[in-house]
Amino acid sequence: MKIFNLNEIKSALANVNLVEEIEKGFVAYSNGEVIVPAVGELHFDSPPGDVHIKYGYIKNDDVYVIKIASGFLKNTNLGLANGNGMMLVFDQQTGQPKAILNDESYLTDVRTAIAGAISAKFLAPSKVKNIGIVGTGVQARMQLEYLKDIIDCKSVLVWGRSDESLLKYKVDMSNTSFDITITKDIDVIINNCQLIVTCTPTETPLIKMVHPGTHITAMGSDTITKQEISSSVLLNADLVVADSCSQCEERGEIFKAIKEGFRMKDVIELGQIIEGKSNKRLNDDQITIADHTGVAVQDIQISKAVLKYLN
Amino acid sequence: MKIFNLNEIKSALANVNLVEEIEKGFVAYSNGEVIVPAVGELHFDSPPGDVHIKYGYIKNDDVYVIKIASGFLKNTNLGLANGNGMMLVFDQQTGQPKAILNDESYLTDVRTAIAGAISAKFLAPSKVKNIGIVGTGVQARMQLEYLKDIIDCKSVLVWGRSDESLLKYKVDMSNTSFDITITKDIDVIINNCQLIVTCTPTETPLIKMVHPGTHITAMGSDTITKQEISSSVLLNADLVVADSCSQCEERGEIFKAIKEGFRMKDVIELGQIIEGKSNKRLNDDQITIADHTGVAVQDIQISKAVLKYLN
Repeated sequence: MKIFNLNEIKSALANVNLVEEIEKGFVAYSNGEVIVPAVGELHFDSPPGDVHIKYGYIKNDDVYVIKIASGFLKNTNLGLANGNGMMLVFDQQTGQPKAILNDESYLTDVRTAIAGAISAKFLAPSKVKNIGIVGTGVQARMQLEYLKDIIDCKSVLVWGRSDESLLKYKVDMSNTSFDITITKDIDVIINNCQLIVTCTPTETPLIKMVHPGTHITAMGSDTITKQEISSSVLLNADLVVADSCSQCEERGEIFKAIKEGFRMKDVIELGQIIEGKSNKRLNDDQITIADHTGVAVQDIQISKAVLKYLN
Repeated sequence: MKIFNLNEIKSALANVNLVEEIEKGFVAYSNGEVIVPAVGELHFDSPPGDVHIKYGYIKNDDVYVIKIASGFLKNTNLGLANGNGMMLVFDQQTGQPKAILNDESYLTDVRTAIAGAISAKFLAPSKVKNIGIVGTGVQARMQLEYLKDIIDCKSVLVWGRSDESLLKYKVDMSNTSFDITITKDIDVIINNCQLIVTCTPTETPLIKMVHPGTHITAMGSDTITKQEISSSVLLNADLVVADSCSQCEERGEIFKAIKEGFRMKDVIELGQIIEGKSNKRLNDDQITIADHTGVAVQDIQISKAVLKYLN
């Protein structure tokens, strides 16, 4: 069993065409070729924390992957990253451990950002004047990093709750190719952005309406309590896409909207869109929403891709 | 994060009073102090394999533990152990990984054997003339290793399907303090043993009746398909004990017996017996059965105990 640290993993990542690998994973998943049991979860109250265990395998593949990812929001006060975790890769023929990718949740962040980029690639309007980022955390930064090769737009409006986090975001992102404008008014995002990526852990919806010609990628809500977008927005959208129908039925934006009358049968799975088996956005006036809860096949694909360059 | 290998783990184990630690775990579990979500599972068909992910934490403890254990029965043909796995220990306050116990499933075997010893300690008749072991695998050996300090009996009858595995068992166990007699006739076990430990992965019951004055510890069945003991035996027993009521309702011997009319309300949890909150065996003529499916609290307790001597 080999153990790789974050620096080794980051070096290997540079060699990988991640969009291609993760797209293949979503397609395999939507075609029923991937075994992904229900997400394992642990919750802690004091201090508040969540652990997700996502695991599974692609049929007739070489490996199975178990991914552990935690989020402890008070870690910041201790000078620690909120997120942590690792990906464990085992031989599908024997159960022998092949490798531990001790990525400190970095690969989870990357595969999450890549999924956002894939949703934007297939669902954003043809012309994006401004990208809207809701949130100022890790994912709010990383989504942009992987959008830069997908969307030809450098103007970014970023929403946050505090001046401090917004200013830090602006400073941190000053060495990127993006032109960052910060705001505490969510309407600035709603009224000016054609591609909005929501990356917060809020349990009270921030986006309560959208204009025609908007695509929202909802990254933040991945539990039964989190919700970034009002259910009415999903009910009025032209197209709602899920990374995993079975997961989104039980957590996240779609889960919340179902309680308000939204119907699961109106949801298209991302893999179907990627493979061209379902229509994507039909014109630049439509409202489209992609709900991401994070699927183990993303972890499987990124683990395998990175391991190819580590071994 | 520290990583410990099997030799280091075995050395540390020598220092631990495992029975005491695991008993404490079962008591905490039965008192509702332990969070143990449903077991995570992966199944493979070709070659056949199972992976169990057991995880959880004791409230207000320092750590949470995620245990991965696999069984791939065809590994033997490749010269590999069937079982593999590891235990991962994380900080309950921050989610930071503290240690990986790369025990190759050894700690799972040990904590399973200890649980069997604990059941025998509380449930076996006062006089055991012969111990019966059903099966010839790892657990069939290890159960005896941990029974030797609990039960004052050195005569062991061992049942197996093949002469080869029985002879190998007898040779391998020749350096222990036990006097081993082998048999392929299950009735020899049933008719002569007052303490029977079943350690097979069979899906067709082997024990179809028992005499008064017998205790059976059923170690092997931990899925919805495995069953070592006919449901009628449970229906006619004086006392049926579960390591975990919620798990045994969904897998193993009790799960099977429920389909034949056995009632969950007649089951006592092992932690209640250990703590003296429920009656154990009342006399030497009773038939008692303990159904073990393996509970994450055993993994939590053994991980913590070993780590104390490793750090």
